[in-house]
Amino acid sequence: MTLTYTRLTHVSDWLKEERMDGALITSPSQIFYLTSFHCEPYERLLGLFLFPGAEPFLICPALEEDRARQSGWDQEIIAYSDVENPWERIGKAIEARGDRQATRIAVEKESLSIARAEALTQLLPQAKFFSLEEPLHNFRAIKDEREIRKMEEAARLADLAVEIGLNSLTEGCIERETAALIDFEMKKRGAEGMAFNTTVLFGENTGFPHGTPGLRELAPGDLVLFDLGVIHEGYCSDITRTFAFRSVSEEQTRLYETVLKGQEAALSLSRPGTRIGDLDVAARQVITDEGYGDYFTHRVGHGLGIDPHEFPSIHGNNNQTLKEGMVFTIEPGAYIPDFGGVRIEDDVLITREGSRTLTRYPKELQVIR
Amino acid sequence: MTLTYTRLTHVSDWLKEERMDGALITSPSQIFYLTSFHCEPYERLLGLFLFPGAEPFLICPALEEDRARQSGWDQEIIAYSDVENPWERIGKAIEARGDRQATRIAVEKESLSIARAEALTQLLPQAKFFSLEEPLHNFRAIKDEREIRKMEEAARLADLAVEIGLNSLTEGCIERETAALIDFEMKKRGAEGMAFNTTVLFGENTGFPHGTPGLRELAPGDLVLFDLGVIHEGYCSDITRTFAFRSVSEEQTRLYETVLKGQEAALSLSRPGTRIGDLDVAARQVITDEGYGDYFTHRVGHGLGIDPHEFPSIHGNNNQTLKEGMVFTIEPGAYIPDFGGVRIEDDVLITREGSRTLTRYPKELQVIR
Repeated sequence: MTLTYTRLTHVSDWLKEERMDGALITSPSQIFYLTSFHCEPYERLLGLFLFPGAEPFLICPALEEDRARQSGWDQEIIAYSDVENPWERIGKAIEARGDRQATRIAVEKESLSIARAEALTQLLPQAKFFSLEEPLHNFRAIKDEREIRKMEEAARLADLAVEIGLNSLTEGCIERETAALIDFEMKKRGAEGMAFNTTVLFGENTGFPHGTPGLRELAPGDLVLFDLGVIHEGYCSDITRTFAFRSVSEEQTRLYETVLKGQEAALSLSRPGTRIGDLDVAARQVITDEGYGDYFTHRVGHGLGIDPHEFPSIHGNNNQTLKEGMVFTIEPGAYIPDFGGVRIEDDVLITREGSRTLTRYPKELQVIR
Repeated sequence: MTLTYTRLTHVSDWLKEERMDGALITSPSQIFYLTSFHCEPYERLLGLFLFPGAEPFLICPALEEDRARQSGWDQEIIAYSDVENPWERIGKAIEARGDRQATRIAVEKESLSIARAEALTQLLPQAKFFSLEEPLHNFRAIKDEREIRKMEEAARLADLAVEIGLNSLTEGCIERETAALIDFEMKKRGAEGMAFNTTVLFGENTGFPHGTPGLRELAPGDLVLFDLGVIHEGYCSDITRTFAFRSVSEEQTRLYETVLKGQEAALSLSRPGTRIGDLDVAARQVITDEGYGDYFTHRVGHGLGIDPHEFPSIHGNNNQTLKEGMVFTIEPGAYIPDFGGVRIEDDVLITREGSRTLTRYPKELQVIR
């Protein structure tokens, strides 16, 4: 519980500093970060209540109580059944802590629903809501050594997944089946799960930045794009590689080399103190100079950790600076409709001196024979 | 676009009846239902704006615009880049419709975040928010013939998935690997994806109602629980079957037969006009009479469709009545810590006369040799 205790203390300290009366945390990944309890409650309420001067409590569906206990949470758990109103139980627990006059409540404004905010307002009629997200996200954005070890392993598994995908390609093979094979092989090797739906795209389908694997069959001359991530001990990796199958055209090569040069430009700036937006600007400049700027339709990257997308967001307008311990993706791309696209993505860790990529799969353009 | 048009008209009619000035819909499944555009935008904003007397518009990330168009949406799309503030674009679009004085706005209160509600309030300072969920969910709860055909196929695939899982079991095989094999085989057969993480549990792990497949190896005398669903053309199935491996004890048999009797009690009441809560009450009564009531820690079922959990919720306090076209699960269970659990789940369609199960895998207790 030491780690969990440190993280909870950090939040409690923030609550005191900001003169908050309490906090409600409801996003599964944040609860996992603070309690080590991982749970996807679907539409049921899962919540962690924290107070600057009283004991915290976890409210969870009755059917999750044993797992919550097993995960190491040794403070109060309120487990409610499917016919109970969890808010009544919460009301009593708050009352027991003498906190019904609370006026300043910290919540996750980006994810707490209006319905839940209204239910909380019923219990605490004087409450005003303040966002807890910035401090929590900033805290989570800096990974400690234990987290980095987990992410290194998740990245190693992602490299392996790309290799497995690549080795399975044959003329006529199908996008969706290739994606399924990768997932299967990874789980056989002990991966907890995939960080998001594994993407395998062939030919013109690579021209969709968020394409979904379908029934397209692989043909000579196609570009092949893999975008996948593996979960290891609750932490995600995220890698993209693009290959050519059997042959490669001049235009495909030019597109590939441009995106790779763009990625390298962003990677070379990745060190403590760099303005985050400059990573996007640098990659975009390279790609725009080569005439593909209009086809690079997304930010250059995003933070990575328990969630496959977390802080910091690596977009051009982000004026924060990189700090040691941040882990994020660098993934420029260019997508030409009816032709195809290229994206190259690595997971980057900011170190004291600079940075290193956690994903290591080679990036020189490979033509699969 | 006919189907989409009918559904949009239905919402527009509701907006008029309720004297709403507009609606914002943000849940991906609801947007899919209304537009046929399926998109998981992660933290980016995806929204459908509807007005009683003006053209609707879709706001989506720039990288999704092509897919939105491809899916058949032929009305306005506002596609914003990662450095744009989507709310500025929304403000202009609303202004163009002369709607800045709106006072009554329908939203999904169960899922719209406070942060987004605040952004909308900035644009429409006089707006009050009303819930659109009940009418939308009630509308969606009644499946039309096309939806039923899709769900029948999803259920057929789920039956097949159970069979594949069962046939793969050997002494020493691993929960997580078995789950991965099922996913792979289903995707090879053309399944779009699984409706949720496939669950395979062995032995004492079946005693967790929401257990996660781990590294437990199968041993003689174990109970084996499969809980899985398949997505077909955007619609989900959801099935659970429990088996015994090599041998079965008297206590395991008694537990199994009790849960099955409970399920049959709920199924036999499944027809138009039954109070929904009575399905839960009936199954629970059987299980309680046999002394397992305390181990049945969840509602008896949930609606099913585009989402793996949707309306209606089949819990004891639900006073609504069953209607023709509803599809939901009936899945009683009993979970005894350190011993094991049994759950048996089918997908049920309410027909004009009564009901039929879409999932058909046999339910008599099977001992796998």
